[in-house]
Amino acid sequence: MISLPASLGIGRELSSILGLKHLDIVYKLFPDNESYIRFPAHVGGEDVILVQTTYPNQDKRLIELLLAIDAAVSQGARSVSAVVPYLAYARQDREFIEGEAVSIRVLLRALKRAGLNRIYVIDIHKEDSLTYFGEGAYNIDPAPLFAEVLKNGLHNPLVVAPDLGAERRARSLASLLRADYAVIEKQRDRITGEVTHKLPEDLNVNDRDVVIIDDIISTGGTIAGIAKYLRSLGARRIVVAASHGLFVGNAISRLKASGVNEIYVLKTVEKILSSDNINVLDPASLIAGKLHETLCTCSD
Amino acid sequence: MISLPASLGIGRELSSILGLKHLDIVYKLFPDNESYIRFPAHVGGEDVILVQTTYPNQDKRLIELLLAIDAAVSQGARSVSAVVPYLAYARQDREFIEGEAVSIRVLLRALKRAGLNRIYVIDIHKEDSLTYFGEGAYNIDPAPLFAEVLKNGLHNPLVVAPDLGAERRARSLASLLRADYAVIEKQRDRITGEVTHKLPEDLNVNDRDVVIIDDIISTGGTIAGIAKYLRSLGARRIVVAASHGLFVGNAISRLKASGVNEIYVLKTVEKILSSDNINVLDPASLIAGKLHETLCTCSD
Repeated sequence: MISLPASLGIGRELSSILGLKHLDIVYKLFPDNESYIRFPAHVGGEDVILVQTTYPNQDKRLIELLLAIDAAVSQGARSVSAVVPYLAYARQDREFIEGEAVSIRVLLRALKRAGLNRIYVIDIHKEDSLTYFGEGAYNIDPAPLFAEVLKNGLHNPLVVAPDLGAERRARSLASLLRADYAVIEKQRDRITGEVTHKLPEDLNVNDRDVVIIDDIISTGGTIAGIAKYLRSLGARRIVVAASHGLFVGNAISRLKASGVNEIYVLKTVEKILSSDNINVLDPASLIAGKLHETLCTCSD
Repeated sequence: MISLPASLGIGRELSSILGLKHLDIVYKLFPDNESYIRFPAHVGGEDVILVQTTYPNQDKRLIELLLAIDAAVSQGARSVSAVVPYLAYARQDREFIEGEAVSIRVLLRALKRAGLNRIYVIDIHKEDSLTYFGEGAYNIDPAPLFAEVLKNGLHNPLVVAPDLGAERRARSLASLLRADYAVIEKQRDRITGEVTHKLPEDLNVNDRDVVIIDDIISTGGTIAGIAKYLRSLGARRIVVAASHGLFVGNAISRLKASGVNEIYVLKTVEKILSSDNINVLDPASLIAGKLHETLCTCSD
């Protein structure tokens, strides 16, 4: 287990949980801002697990990951795996307009071609994207972590997905919370361009606690819009559960102003902004479970 | 010919010289700082030439290049070439210490594997590195450009290479200037760590104009040290000719203080700092020549 510069301390935690040897990579920045990566020990013949997240400085963190994979491969590592708590560039997962670069395809293929055998990511935007990597790509569902902190104290809960793409997230959390879930329908006015949100008509939100679940909070615009809508329907308390809290710009104050009471995110990016209504959950145990399940060569 | 966001205007110049169609790529940055790349026209069946340099923001510019290559390949381009005036990460071209990532190998292989057929770079740190790309990698020697501006007005010139690695640069420029060249020997005192420079003993520098040639000016430390040494030997005028003027930190004032009279660099990076003693030369004609020579399918 080898922690790269943006490991969030997760490499150390994982190796402690799993009983693996842990090393920090030797890292420096040259004066011109190029990254330098060196393994502090020979990893020939070893199964190497690299840990590096990719926000902020997505491009730099990705290049560093490529550098580390190359060094492991060239030393003759038996296998190279990477734990990437937040994998950047995942939202561009297809050509929405002809001629677009499909960034997640580029990255997953580049990592694979550099010699990466397995990749573990938390809550990737679209699970299907992992097929660009081929065999050995694992997505980790954060729902158990959210359920653990939310299972008590919610009043007549409803889990809400901001769009159809997030439905599987809502279904997963709702089943753990033994709650209902619903998917928001987004409508854009053809003339004004204004976005409106809609829940199924027969759904009563009044006096209920609503959990909005999503993968990424970037500027918070979408979630803020939905929170306002839910408030207008009489929701009692609004909780946001999102794996990756990027909180770009004034996202936090925007969410507060929209009526969000609490936000739960995972420790998957560097420098999560702190605020009285943000709770950061540690995904190490969840990642450890997935690693154990997929890497374990122990006999039954 | 397609200019990426860090094309330096060279894409436009090249296409005008070579009579090729030119397009700017559609580019934006998402709020979380991810890059977005889209081809404005269908390039299926075409020979695509991308233009992008990689300083500053080496990592971002490299990822963007990977994105563009992928988009060209997925549209069915007949071939994909890239003009990269400054290719970053080239100084780590081997394992100086065991376990180091060999960054230039990582990049060249990643570009190749993404589907790049040809790459053109100006004055790469070590020409040998291009073998990591395999066939289709071209290094462009800047000596003709430097010779053009230096050929008149030098008094009894001597071309100096700061180390053995730069010898081929000095030889190339000296032959065009019909001048002598010499290689500096660097010595590090084992006890104090102090670096001293040495020229061959029988070489007279007194009252001569000296041209120090190198590939990169980063912090300017090495060149400043050599300039001081040459001054101490009585050099009349000191000119620096370096392809890539990164000018990190206080490089410019440092070089001035060391006795450098003039600096010539090429337009190969974004935002070259300007100063009264810096002259920026345009490499477009040189690149056009190499493209014409290697891409031309015209009959003899």
